Amino acid sequence: MDWREKLSNVIAANNSLLCVGLDSDTGKIPSFLKETSKNPLFDFNKAIIEATKDLVCAYKLNMAFYEVAGKTGIETLEKTIQHIPGDILVILDGKRNDIGNTAQKYAQSLFETLKADAVTINPYLGKDGVSPFLDYKEKCSFILCRTSNPSAGDFQDLLVSATPVYQMVARKIREWDTNKNCGAVVGATYPEELRIVRSILGDDIPILIPGVGKQGGDVEKTIKNGTNSHGEMALINSSREIIFAGSQQDFAEQARKKAETVRNDINKYR
Amino acid sequence: MDWREKLSNVIAANNSLLCVGLDSDTGKIPSFLKETSKNPLFDFNKAIIEATKDLVCAYKLNMAFYEVAGKTGIETLEKTIQHIPGDILVILDGKRNDIGNTAQKYAQSLFETLKADAVTINPYLGKDGVSPFLDYKEKCSFILCRTSNPSAGDFQDLLVSATPVYQMVARKIREWDTNKNCGAVVGATYPEELRIVRSILGDDIPILIPGVGKQGGDVEKTIKNGTNSHGEMALINSSREIIFAGSQQDFAEQARKKAETVRNDINKYR
Repeated sequence: MDWREKLSNVIAANNSLLCVGLDSDTGKIPSFLKETSKNPLFDFNKAIIEATKDLVCAYKLNMAFYEVAGKTGIETLEKTIQHIPGDILVILDGKRNDIGNTAQKYAQSLFETLKADAVTINPYLGKDGVSPFLDYKEKCSFILCRTSNPSAGDFQDLLVSATPVYQMVARKIREWDTNKNCGAVVGATYPEELRIVRSILGDDIPILIPGVGKQGGDVEKTIKNGTNSHGEMALINSSREIIFAGSQQDFAEQARKKAETVRNDINKYR
Repeated sequence: MDWREKLSNVIAANNSLLCVGLDSDTGKIPSFLKETSKNPLFDFNKAIIEATKDLVCAYKLNMAFYEVAGKTGIETLEKTIQHIPGDILVILDGKRNDIGNTAQKYAQSLFETLKADAVTINPYLGKDGVSPFLDYKEKCSFILCRTSNPSAGDFQDLLVSATPVYQMVARKIREWDTNKNCGAVVGATYPEELRIVRSILGDDIPILIPGVGKQGGDVEKTIKNGTNSHGEMALINSSREIIFAGSQQDFAEQARKKAETVRNDINKYR
C-alpha cells in the first residue's frame, strides 16, 4: 500500500497524529528488563508497541540507538520493524545523505532491506542525493528542513538574498515533489519557522515534527502552524517523554497513559 | 594513537596520500567469488586490503554498501575493519548527522562500537550536532563542505552576502577546530572550490577528497589545490576505479596496479 493511503487510514482509525519515537537508549530502559530478558531492547520496544499501537499513526526509529550495538542492534531494529502492525507507518530516522550511486544503496537499504514506509534524509548534497529516495514512489521521504536543535540556525538561518536557507530547502522540497512523496522535517521548537514552511509547502506535503516533549516544543502552536488547512499532514513525534514515562514493571502502561495524553492534547487543537 | 600521528606516520611509511574507498558493491565484485566464498564481500575486501596496504594512507568504508545487507552487512563491516592493519587510518564514511543526544550515539557507534579512526559527518544541523563527534579528541571528523556530486551547488552555492554556503561551512570548520580534530570533505570535481577551502582552512586541517577516478576529478589540480604548503593534509580517495579494476581471478593484482598508478600520479604533483 502507498504511504499516503496507509497514513490517511491509520490517522482516521486511531484518530491520531502522534508518532512515537522508539529512541530506545539501552542506558534508559527499565533495569529489571536487563536482568530478566535475553534481548531487553527488543522486549522494551515490543511492550511499548503493544501498549500504544491504537494511539499512534506512526513509529519512528532513530537508527543511532540501534547502530550503537553493532550487528545485534541491527537485528533488534529488524525484529522491531517486523513487530509493528502493518497498518501503522514505519519511519526510519537515519538522516542519510550521499552522492547519487551511494544514496541509491541507502534508499535500497532503508526501503527494501529494512522495509520502511518512510525515511528522513538530509538535503545538503542537493537533488541528485535525494532523487534515489524519491524514486521509490510508494514511500515517503521526509527531508530535513528546519531541525529542532539549538544550533539549527548555524546554516539554516543564513540569509540568501533575504531568504533563510531552510526556506530555500522548503521551496526545493515543493519543487522535488513530482512523485508526491516528499515530506519535510521541521522542529516544534521553532513554531514561526514551522508556520512559514507550511505556507511554502501547501496542503499536500506532510511535515514530520519532532521537538514536543523533552525538547520543549508547544503542542498548540505546533498543531496550528504545522497541520494543513484540514488539520492533517502533520506527524507529531514524541520519543523520550513517552517511552521513558515509567521505569518500573508498569513502564508500558505508563507509556500508554502518556501517549494517550499527548494524542488527546494534539487533537484538542486540530 | 592519535589520528594525526597515525596519519602522518603512514603517509611517510607508504609515501602515499591515497585513500582507497571500499565501496564494495556486491553487484560489482567478481562473480567467481560469489560462487566460491561463504562471505564474498569480506573475501573481496580482504584481498583488496592485502594487495594495497603498502600503497595507501587510509581505507574509507562507505557504510551504505554494508548496511544494504542488513545485519550480515554490518558483520562484514566489523570484520573488514578488524582486518585493516592498525597503522592505516580507517575512515567510516556514513555522513551521519542528528541533534545532540542522538549525534552522541552515532559518535559512540562509529568510534567505539566500530572503532573508526575518522568519520565523515554532515554539518546541516550546526554545531551541537557536530560537537559530540569532536569530543572524541583522538579521532578525526571530516565535515562535508563541498561535495563531489553534480547537484552539490543546490544549497552549497547559495550566496550569503556574496559568500557561498560551502565557504561559510569551511569558516565554521576552522572555528570548530578547537580540539585539532576537524577535517573537511571537498570533491575533486570542484578544483577551484577546493583551492578556496584550503585557503580558508590553513595548513593544519586535513581535507578528504573524493571524486578522482570514475567521477572525473583531475589529479594535478586536486593535489595543487588541496594539499597544504608542505604537500600534505590531503587524503585523495579513489574507490570504484581501484577496487573494481579487474573482475577476474587476478582482481586484487589489478587493484594493486591501479592503486600504485594513482599513488604515483598523486606523488608527481606533491
